[in-house]
Amino acid sequence: MTKKLWGGRFAADTSKLMEQFNGSITFDKRLYKEDIRGSIAHAKMLAKQKIISAKDFAAIQKGLLSILKDIDAGKFDFKLSLEDIHMNIEAELTKRIGPAGARLHSARSRNDQVAVDMHMYAKKEAAEIAGLIFNLQMTVLALAQKNKDVVMPGYTHLQRAQPVTFAHHMLAYFNMLCRDFERAETAFDAADICPLGAGAIAGTTLPIDRAFTAKELNFGKVYSNSMDAVSDRDYVVEFLAFLSILMMHLSRLSEELIIWSSTEFGFIELSDAYATGSSMMPQKKNPDAAELTRGKTGRVYGSLLSMLTTLKGLPLTYNKDMQEDKEGFFDAIDTAKNCLLVFEGMLSTIKINKEKMAGAFKKDFSNATDLADYLVKKGLPFREAHEVTGKAVAYAIKKNCALLDLSLEEFKALSPLFAKDIYGEISIDTCVSKRNSYGGTSFKQTAVQLKFAAEVVKKEAAQLKDLKDNI
Amino acid sequence: MTKKLWGGRFAADTSKLMEQFNGSITFDKRLYKEDIRGSIAHAKMLAKQKIISAKDFAAIQKGLLSILKDIDAGKFDFKLSLEDIHMNIEAELTKRIGPAGARLHSARSRNDQVAVDMHMYAKKEAAEIAGLIFNLQMTVLALAQKNKDVVMPGYTHLQRAQPVTFAHHMLAYFNMLCRDFERAETAFDAADICPLGAGAIAGTTLPIDRAFTAKELNFGKVYSNSMDAVSDRDYVVEFLAFLSILMMHLSRLSEELIIWSSTEFGFIELSDAYATGSSMMPQKKNPDAAELTRGKTGRVYGSLLSMLTTLKGLPLTYNKDMQEDKEGFFDAIDTAKNCLLVFEGMLSTIKINKEKMAGAFKKDFSNATDLADYLVKKGLPFREAHEVTGKAVAYAIKKNCALLDLSLEEFKALSPLFAKDIYGEISIDTCVSKRNSYGGTSFKQTAVQLKFAAEVVKKEAAQLKDLKDNI
Amino acid sequence: MTKKLWGGRFAADTSKLMEQFNGSITFDKRLYKEDIRGSIAHAKMLAKQKIISAKDFAAIQKGLLSILKDIDAGKFDFKLSLEDIHMNIEAELTKRIGPAGARLHSARSRNDQVAVDMHMYAKKEAAEIAGLIFNLQMTVLALAQKNKDVVMPGYTHLQRAQPVTFAHHMLAYFNMLCRDFERAETAFDAADICPLGAGAIAGTTLPIDRAFTAKELNFGKVYSNSMDAVSDRDYVVEFLAFLSILMMHLSRLSEELIIWSSTEFGFIELSDAYATGSSMMPQKKNPDAAELTRGKTGRVYGSLLSMLTTLKGLPLTYNKDMQEDKEGFFDAIDTAKNCLLVFEGMLSTIKINKEKMAGAFKKDFSNATDLADYLVKKGLPFREAHEVTGKAVAYAIKKNCALLDLSLEEFKALSPLFAKDIYGEISIDTCVSKRNSYGGTSFKQTAVQLKFAAEVVKKEAAQLKDLKDNI
Amino acid sequence: MTKKLWGGRFAADTSKLMEQFNGSITFDKRLYKEDIRGSIAHAKMLAKQKIISAKDFAAIQKGLLSILKDIDAGKFDFKLSLEDIHMNIEAELTKRIGPAGARLHSARSRNDQVAVDMHMYAKKEAAEIAGLIFNLQMTVLALAQKNKDVVMPGYTHLQRAQPVTFAHHMLAYFNMLCRDFERAETAFDAADICPLGAGAIAGTTLPIDRAFTAKELNFGKVYSNSMDAVSDRDYVVEFLAFLSILMMHLSRLSEELIIWSSTEFGFIELSDAYATGSSMMPQKKNPDAAELTRGKTGRVYGSLLSMLTTLKGLPLTYNKDMQEDKEGFFDAIDTAKNCLLVFEGMLSTIKINKEKMAGAFKKDFSNATDLADYLVKKGLPFREAHEVTGKAVAYAIKKNCALLDLSLEEFKALSPLFAKDIYGEISIDTCVSKRNSYGGTSFKQTAVQLKFAAEVVKKEAAQLKDLKDNI
Repeated sequence: MTKKLWGGRFAADTSKLMEQFNGSITFDKRLYKEDIRGSIAHAKMLAKQKIISAKDFAAIQKGLLSILKDIDAGKFDFKLSLEDIHMNIEAELTKRIGPAGARLHSARSRNDQVAVDMHMYAKKEAAEIAGLIFNLQMTVLALAQKNKDVVMPGYTHLQRAQPVTFAHHMLAYFNMLCRDFERAETAFDAADICPLGAGAIAGTTLPIDRAFTAKELNFGKVYSNSMDAVSDRDYVVEFLAFLSILMMHLSRLSEELIIWSSTEFGFIELSDAYATGSSMMPQKKNPDAAELTRGKTGRVYGSLLSMLTTLKGLPLTYNKDMQEDKEGFFDAIDTAKNCLLVFEGMLSTIKINKEKMAGAFKKDFSNATDLADYLVKKGLPFREAHEVTGKAVAYAIKKNCALLDLSLEEFKALSPLFAKDIYGEISIDTCVSKRNSYGGTSFKQTAVQLKFAAEVVKKEAAQLKDLKDNI
Repeated sequence: MTKKLWGGRFAADTSKLMEQFNGSITFDKRLYKEDIRGSIAHAKMLAKQKIISAKDFAAIQKGLLSILKDIDAGKFDFKLSLEDIHMNIEAELTKRIGPAGARLHSARSRNDQVAVDMHMYAKKEAAEIAGLIFNLQMTVLALAQKNKDVVMPGYTHLQRAQPVTFAHHMLAYFNMLCRDFERAETAFDAADICPLGAGAIAGTTLPIDRAFTAKELNFGKVYSNSMDAVSDRDYVVEFLAFLSILMMHLSRLSEELIIWSSTEFGFIELSDAYATGSSMMPQKKNPDAAELTRGKTGRVYGSLLSMLTTLKGLPLTYNKDMQEDKEGFFDAIDTAKNCLLVFEGMLSTIKINKEKMAGAFKKDFSNATDLADYLVKKGLPFREAHEVTGKAVAYAIKKNCALLDLSLEEFKALSPLFAKDIYGEISIDTCVSKRNSYGGTSFKQTAVQLKFAAEVVKKEAAQLKDLKDNI
Repeated sequence: MTKKLWGGRFAADTSKLMEQFNGSITFDKRLYKEDIRGSIAHAKMLAKQKIISAKDFAAIQKGLLSILKDIDAGKFDFKLSLEDIHMNIEAELTKRIGPAGARLHSARSRNDQVAVDMHMYAKKEAAEIAGLIFNLQMTVLALAQKNKDVVMPGYTHLQRAQPVTFAHHMLAYFNMLCRDFERAETAFDAADICPLGAGAIAGTTLPIDRAFTAKELNFGKVYSNSMDAVSDRDYVVEFLAFLSILMMHLSRLSEELIIWSSTEFGFIELSDAYATGSSMMPQKKNPDAAELTRGKTGRVYGSLLSMLTTLKGLPLTYNKDMQEDKEGFFDAIDTAKNCLLVFEGMLSTIKINKEKMAGAFKKDFSNATDLADYLVKKGLPFREAHEVTGKAVAYAIKKNCALLDLSLEEFKALSPLFAKDIYGEISIDTCVSKRNSYGGTSFKQTAVQLKFAAEVVKKEAAQLKDLKDNI
Repeated sequence: MTKKLWGGRFAADTSKLMEQFNGSITFDKRLYKEDIRGSIAHAKMLAKQKIISAKDFAAIQKGLLSILKDIDAGKFDFKLSLEDIHMNIEAELTKRIGPAGARLHSARSRNDQVAVDMHMYAKKEAAEIAGLIFNLQMTVLALAQKNKDVVMPGYTHLQRAQPVTFAHHMLAYFNMLCRDFERAETAFDAADICPLGAGAIAGTTLPIDRAFTAKELNFGKVYSNSMDAVSDRDYVVEFLAFLSILMMHLSRLSEELIIWSSTEFGFIELSDAYATGSSMMPQKKNPDAAELTRGKTGRVYGSLLSMLTTLKGLPLTYNKDMQEDKEGFFDAIDTAKNCLLVFEGMLSTIKINKEKMAGAFKKDFSNATDLADYLVKKGLPFREAHEVTGKAVAYAIKKNCALLDLSLEEFKALSPLFAKDIYGEISIDTCVSKRNSYGGTSFKQTAVQLKFAAEVVKKEAAQLKDLKDNI
């Protein structure tokens, strides 16, 4: 290497090195549909504004559509020497249709061209991901509906806290996904602003019509400042923040599925299709899909941080650093989509061990709060009721039994307020049923939530259609 | 340490250590206003629902207001042994009003109590930050308005690209701040959902009215699932993502202010009030405020990543890890607020060196694009015009002059399309004026943008009032 | 706010605002010991080099020691108007001893002064943390030693894999901590280079002796380039990377303690001193210390990322952004130290439920690998043995029994290679004992590891002394 | 999607989906050399220990070498259905050599197999990167040597501080790269420990010789605890932290190259081979390589954070999350290597504008510190000298001249201590020459540093050879 450096033959080598370092075609070819669509809209506008002739436009459109067809068919030869998707397509276009192709780039710079491609791509992916979230919500909802009578321990600190319905637990995730769906819409809206026509930095001297191209490309808004238009990547960061939160939710559910799959919990069993074996230990059935999703959360967080770091301290307007807005963004989108798909499959084939969940309550103190509430209703201040209950729990632990196993005498020794009705009041079924406050776990409230969720899903379906219509 | 460990006297020491490790009062005391306000609303609801007596409510309210007054006055003694703000206030309340105080915690857990405090706090801070962003926008707008005729080089890659108005450049930041203002509203909305009444995890057995407390506390929505209510921190992450993008914007402007303050650029001079000197070099005038802001960007990013990392893989519902939702969040909010305040001061006292900015165009090629556009208008395809211009630039560099210094003969030698009108067409004033596409830098479009910005500000003022009314 | 801005009375306010924004005394006062020690060494060198008089040095030393005493006693009044710890001390020194105090800053800038303070501080803390890691290693080792005969399931994917000794499991953490101890040493070494005398950027014109001050301050090396000396923060990043890995290890152990504390696993019980209760659920005993540590992992990661982000793209040499090297660094150090202390306490008081661990093997397939190995030893290729074992496991699951419960006939039906010795070969005791490869879990290898660990600890004790001698 | 889900034909689809999600062959095929080398060493040991026959070993070795040849030649067909590189190679081996191939996996699990591959890969890449750092150091050193007499302004806060030699400035980066070289060695050492033989988690029942395989594979150490061996990824995190610091350094130099390339600074000119043009602005010559490197810094930081996040809170031992240790790691390595290569090319072809650097001192106050030092030497306490100098600077700014332009009378009016010798004392040449403290910028010290650097490089060359010998 060092020899090459001082040997005088370096220049030739390095230009190739620089070409590889600088080129983006290996990853931005993913934008070919957006690039062609954007170019056709731009050319149409140029023709409308008499900047190019109608004949030129016709040639450009035809040429671009033939290129689109070839790329779709995998028959296009991308060249690194042409740097990026824009130059690859434009060069080929000029080759196919002659001088008209060279006129396409009038009133446009790669700065606004790549920006409009990225905006269109972000919108398309936001809509697709919204659809996948929707599908997963449907799956979660179906799972909750199907198991709405199943009771399981509810946990805080991974310690049993109070009994809850399995549906209630699942609906917590349904609600997280609702917020994710909304964030997908916000990510869509953030990208829904058209930079085309901003030129390299300051607009153009040609009489373009930016509103026209924006409308052609289904954009809701137009950037009102050209310098902002070419250097804004807020929508990329927002999208990555949305994906990070989504992955955080999936990582939480992953953790639960992994814990529930352990021999010790045994609350669920993953289908063979979503578990894998070990090359050494024949008995293993590992929840790989959940583990991988949990692990990939770090990956999406990393893409968010990368983008934020890259943008930190960049002066206006476009800087080459911004080319780094693509690979991490694409990877985060692919990752989130794959995880959503896998979760849909994993949850729709999961087996719920109702007996194991219900059996958990033997020698369990999940009904301790109800014992305290019982005393509160009998007039004891809460803090005192809490204390009496603590003593009851300690007593039962010592006796190696559950609270329901204590005799009335034993209860009365702890507090004179106890009466025979205590047994009914702290049965697991009662514990669940009585937690009937809005949003609570009672079978009645669970049913309310399920109904509410069904309505949410209906509303989302309409919103989803709306997104897809505006890509 | 080791001796203590093996010496048998450890238990006593460690309980104190654990107390310090576990306690949050040193930082969550910041939430005292929210905690008291939330408790009064809760007590009022308990009385309405006959869970406590009207007399108890009156005592609770009076007691809490007296505590509020004492904390406001700095006369409250926070105790680490009481762990957190909730227990500190409740213990004092019971001390002041007796058993009624102990009844306040009926139908409530610290899990939903701390959640409602944090939601209220987030809303308040989102509104305050929106106000500071608004103020900064006003300052940026005034600066742009005042310097709307100033022309400066516009940059890409920190290389001079095309001449722009200083106002155009500033308005790019105005637009970024517009999006930040909107994100502040989104952060407000994300927090505007009431978890109170979710209990520890599963709701409560007491007949509470969650809609009532939510309304009392100005919340727009109520969590429909109690498990989600106590374990959701999405609004914290969203807030931190918003702040990270805001800081990213400020870091970009910081970078520009620092570069512009260099002797070499000399475009601006910071007021003495916002610059500092050196302990060793008497001539120095350093842009410390801008540097610190740029540096603090990393700090806010760090808080975002911390929160995301902390939440990764947590099973439902509340886990103690979530106590980490406070310090980084508070710090990021304080940091962003201070940076916004300092920027407002720094920008409102900045001196713009118009002559230095204008003088930059001597021996400059910022008008090269216009030369190319000139050729395009004369009928040359853009790519060819680009090539001719490249040659003209190379020729001028060799001659050590600007494009405007070339003779007509020299121009004609480069392309027969050049005529006498070239000189007017590539004057800096023309370069700016002709870039008259929507969002472009022409004086006319700059004026359009300034007018548009004035309308935006008016609309934001109304939105700001709305936010503050709903805290 | 806006009114103030345009009201003309702003200058006064903002200078105060800027003072607060810019000042670091609220957090860098933590460095007072280092600052005074560094100043005394610097003054001693100045006197030796005849830059100041011996009398001046005596006065400076006496003055600084009296200030040190006052700060130690909490009797020093830090002033924000004096910005930082350096100016606060110097101003007070001049007040106490007159003009000699003003001479102290000769041949020094705050750029190299703060750098030397931070280097000394980093060394001190690296040594302290190494000590705390050492203590925790001792605790882990004692716990392993005490439970060296306890057998528990070893997990991969949180699925039972193969039986292991509890000591083996604990020694995995011991080994992680060994690497952390080494990294503490590396962090110490990275900081062990003296920047004093670098001046603001380019050295000094005065005839200083940098080797002398470096030696006075126990530094092993001296920066050979002054520009590097004032702008290098590598040692801070390295320290934070070390702490991040340390916290990652603690987060892994935290996760295990939390899972093991669940009712379902029940492998351990935390002492009351390291667990906390619930304000609502009287039966709860929550592993708060482990949860908090796991949560605080995100916080330390955040500090690492903050520092890296802050340093990204900074031109040489000192920039004010670098003031951000302190708060996150201090916080990460405090956090890690507290977590180490709490872990030491928590692990030294933990109760191991041996019966629960051992009982796990009933109806368990942790010995499946041994079944496969048995067949391999009888001549079956591993992949085929794996397959036969898979069938055996599936058969036993169907029969709802463990492998040891199968009859010899049943075994033989699966493969003719099985013989009577299979029962001994797959007993849990055998499974552990036979895994006797180096580093394996057999009781013998566990004993080897324990012995090895004891030697490591001895070596570390010496290294620790060495670190402390070189602070 | 939803229809498919409930349509009963899902199972088939999802298994394919899961296969794609779970498979790692698309990226871990990069490890084929390590995998084959590790397998041969393992087989050799198995034969030595009589676990397999010598004949089997011969067949295995031959088979693996033929596979290696085919992969090298691009003639191997990787199958996603075979999940990963290990299974792809083993399956092919068994196909080629029959049952002996199936015996290769005796006493090994994929957990230790992938770990050993990654360790070997990390060592190889650490050595390669050390080599690239070394090359870049050579380039930086040559650049410094060549321009050792060039004087330029030294900056703090991007404000001119004191004059420095260009070589001094470059040597600051040389020193950063020295530390990076050392960190490459540390990363090598961290990876230089052999996990092979740890099995899935607990070692193996077969009589293996771990020291033998470790030696065969050039490892310096062997993991002493099998559970640690399969779940340790510290060396990956350390490597990523090292790369992050390296990229931080390159980002700082990038920032300087970008600023120096601006028209306003004009200190350097990049060769055409390392700069690129604009599609719209014909005059542009953009420092893309430096910008991209600065931008890619975020990407490497992201990989570090991803890995840390992924590892957070994972229970022992192997979890599938750990498969995420590869892609970000590979990408960070590729990125750093490319940046180092490009920097070497960019710096070796850079043009230094000496006149522009030297010309910067007209109307400049870089010699202000020297004015103050002059007064100190005449007996004024530093703080007072600083004040007088401040006044001199303010006076000169008002007069629009440099300090050297002031008359002796003007100097004397500022302080009676000034004499005629002031002019010589504050000439730029003197300013540089007098800063002769160790590590300072004087021509003499610069020469000392250059000599020292040449020795460092010699030492590094030997260390580099050592690294490469131990891959």
